Amino acid sequence: MNRAILMLGVMLMSFAFAKAQSPQTQQDSTVLRTIYNHNLTNSKSYQWLEHLSNEIGGRLSGSPQAQMAVEYTLAELSKVADTAYLQPVMVPRWTRGTPEVAYFETKDGVRIKVNVCALGGSVATQPSGKSAQIIEVDGIEDLEKLGKSAISGKYVFYNRPMKATKIQTFEAYGGCVDQRYSGAAAAAEYGAVGVIVRSMNLRMDDLPHTGAMSYGDLPIDQYIPAAAISTNDAEKLHAALENDQDLKFFLQQDCTNHGEVQSYNVIAEIKGNQFPDEVILVGGHLDSWDLGDGSHDDGAGVVQSMQVLETIKSTNYKPKRTIRAVLFMNEENGLRGANAYAEQAMIKNQKHILALESDAGGFSPRGFRFDTNPAQMSQIESWKPLFAPYLIHYFELGGSGADVGPLKDTGAVLAGLRPDSQRYFDYHHASNDTFEAVNKRELELGAATMSSLVFLYDKYGLVSTFKN
Amino acid sequence: MNRAILMLGVMLMSFAFAKAQSPQTQQDSTVLRTIYNHNLTNSKSYQWLEHLSNEIGGRLSGSPQAQMAVEYTLAELSKVADTAYLQPVMVPRWTRGTPEVAYFETKDGVRIKVNVCALGGSVATQPSGKSAQIIEVDGIEDLEKLGKSAISGKYVFYNRPMKATKIQTFEAYGGCVDQRYSGAAAAAEYGAVGVIVRSMNLRMDDLPHTGAMSYGDLPIDQYIPAAAISTNDAEKLHAALENDQDLKFFLQQDCTNHGEVQSYNVIAEIKGNQFPDEVILVGGHLDSWDLGDGSHDDGAGVVQSMQVLETIKSTNYKPKRTIRAVLFMNEENGLRGANAYAEQAMIKNQKHILALESDAGGFSPRGFRFDTNPAQMSQIESWKPLFAPYLIHYFELGGSGADVGPLKDTGAVLAGLRPDSQRYFDYHHASNDTFEAVNKRELELGAATMSSLVFLYDKYGLVSTFKN
Repeated sequence: MNRAILMLGVMLMSFAFAKAQSPQTQQDSTVLRTIYNHNLTNSKSYQWLEHLSNEIGGRLSGSPQAQMAVEYTLAELSKVADTAYLQPVMVPRWTRGTPEVAYFETKDGVRIKVNVCALGGSVATQPSGKSAQIIEVDGIEDLEKLGKSAISGKYVFYNRPMKATKIQTFEAYGGCVDQRYSGAAAAAEYGAVGVIVRSMNLRMDDLPHTGAMSYGDLPIDQYIPAAAISTNDAEKLHAALENDQDLKFFLQQDCTNHGEVQSYNVIAEIKGNQFPDEVILVGGHLDSWDLGDGSHDDGAGVVQSMQVLETIKSTNYKPKRTIRAVLFMNEENGLRGANAYAEQAMIKNQKHILALESDAGGFSPRGFRFDTNPAQMSQIESWKPLFAPYLIHYFELGGSGADVGPLKDTGAVLAGLRPDSQRYFDYHHASNDTFEAVNKRELELGAATMSSLVFLYDKYGLVSTFKN
Repeated sequence: MNRAILMLGVMLMSFAFAKAQSPQTQQDSTVLRTIYNHNLTNSKSYQWLEHLSNEIGGRLSGSPQAQMAVEYTLAELSKVADTAYLQPVMVPRWTRGTPEVAYFETKDGVRIKVNVCALGGSVATQPSGKSAQIIEVDGIEDLEKLGKSAISGKYVFYNRPMKATKIQTFEAYGGCVDQRYSGAAAAAEYGAVGVIVRSMNLRMDDLPHTGAMSYGDLPIDQYIPAAAISTNDAEKLHAALENDQDLKFFLQQDCTNHGEVQSYNVIAEIKGNQFPDEVILVGGHLDSWDLGDGSHDDGAGVVQSMQVLETIKSTNYKPKRTIRAVLFMNEENGLRGANAYAEQAMIKNQKHILALESDAGGFSPRGFRFDTNPAQMSQIESWKPLFAPYLIHYFELGGSGADVGPLKDTGAVLAGLRPDSQRYFDYHHASNDTFEAVNKRELELGAATMSSLVFLYDKYGLVSTFKN
């Protein structure tokens, strides 16, 4: 009988877990409690974030602020690590210039101002701006249906919203972001004069959300300007277009691509005392967009990664393996830092066993996503009970993160911290991604959760290494 | 071998669950998906909250705003329920009066202003305010050690902070709130002239947090004023007292207790078509404190409960059992509404099978706490997989909630929605508990989670009823 089989299963599992509650597990529980207590009472993550956000601000690759962030975090990491150093990397530099202006004109000649911002990497309009008809589409697929005659000489307005029914908001983002990233290149092929993209935001508000875009293989003389429009204004424009398909849209922006400049990843580590050649990496990205101060994206991940080292030092834990914090440069518009780091790691044949990033906001942590094999996942599953007292319950396969991605061939378990994602896109790449949007306890719980996973990998290593 | 036993357990459980994935379970999954989709796209909860918060505002029992809230919710519920009506209840009426003034004086005569607010139910100071020495304690227990000679003629400053290391912030609250609720009565016995209580807030900020207090059995002529002080100012006062134990503290507040006035619970229901006498109750409390507009506490719970009925109506679900929303009056300072409701339910011998409240903020839902027996808990456990796609993972015994508490002798399963609690005390009973502090999706996910539990109880009933 079904119920009887279930009960037998439960009994056997309870028995297995009761046996598993060895002195070892007790010890691990105690270490996790120490880690969480330290993070919730004596950690530095919040004050580091306050400095990054309020003293430095938005840190777009190649900006003076990005350089200030490099210098600040290097100095701070030097205080908590055995060694801290810079890894050079060339990054693109793009500047927004003067604030963008956009409006549409109703039939009776009234100009309705809308909130827009240039997408990162976009070219400028002509200096006096450009007025043209605008055509709304639900996605890149619509362009082919419409054809060149319908699109040529117009702005293309990408207005497919993020799906509210997705519980995991990153899935809703994934279902829309092609419009922002590839929309301009696609529309240019049909003779569009520019693209206006509905902001990647689940909320209705007045903030435009920037983000990376690419012209792909398009010849440079065919680049067209690309801007994001706030969700409220996207709805307004949509309604106006229903009344008047001929309405004119005006956009003026004077952003500039400056080519490549020198920048750095910031790296710091505490050497392992048994297996110093095995690296456990924690990281976040030091660059951010320019509209806010990048507190959630990814100031939070930066200071949480730094906090992992601080926690080790302050709790006087002596790691067996080398624990390394990497603050990646240029995640937002190039991934140059992550690629440079992985390339060097490969060249030097460095053994990474875990590469864990935090780049999903400083919200209440729920768990992790992993890119790895079933054997490693079964070890991870066995640690779940240790995390239960901290309400960490989410351990899923797939989708660890962008900065650790290039390390996939090293054999490391790739992992990404997964905080509650419901509010993330309220702030993502917008001017309200500021220090006030981050809650101290939620930030600290994330750092403690990362530190706990690092501790377990330090103690037990990979399943296949047989070194525990 | 341990691992082999574990694997056998896992296999058997998987088998049991695979069998459990009956057409029934498939059907239930589909209903939950419908419920979540509706809530995330077409629900009314957020616009109801906007009205309660921004058009009505703080709704302290007996206030004109509380009456407006009664009338508004009754009218709105009439649109989604079969019947909606008022249940009379007498409630205490207390008013804050003009804003409080407080400061302490340093040795060199400088007055340092501090942010305070009268506790709900407190008496006023004399009209010109009262200056006196102040003595800091870590809790009520300290009073006996200090004795009357040390306390008499002084303010008592209760400064035990909420424990940051508690992962569940309600536990941290539970470990401190005796200072606020009973601190004045206790200190009055030792001749104190008033009490200043550190705000129940895990964050350091400038906002005083009010809340209920009681003079217990104290004769009325011995009542002393009680106020909360912001956490920042509590630290400031603490530091000043370390320098100067004789410093003078000044408090002026002119709050008033007005006795009892008429008010109401608001009740609405959709009749069951098979077991109309079995009631499934969902509720929140309509009253709030006066400093903010009570959006999290408990506007969220009110509109989520209303939303359960709206969801039933809009998804065209025909419940077997009667689904009843109860908006309780006076949870904050008396629990009169909950007691009156339970008394009437008992007198009328109404059969309640589930009483579910939402009174822990409109944050991302994590699960529920239940007060019930092991048999019911095992049924609840069996539903966990249905909630997993919505990241609802927390189903624990104990601590359902204040408003459903008086129903415990009805045999109903008592339940409380448990949202993420990390931010809750940032807003609790303070002036920043406003509409902007609530995220639409998080609110809606909470309502969907409540609706889903209601659906399952409607379909399956209690384990002991054998009516499924």
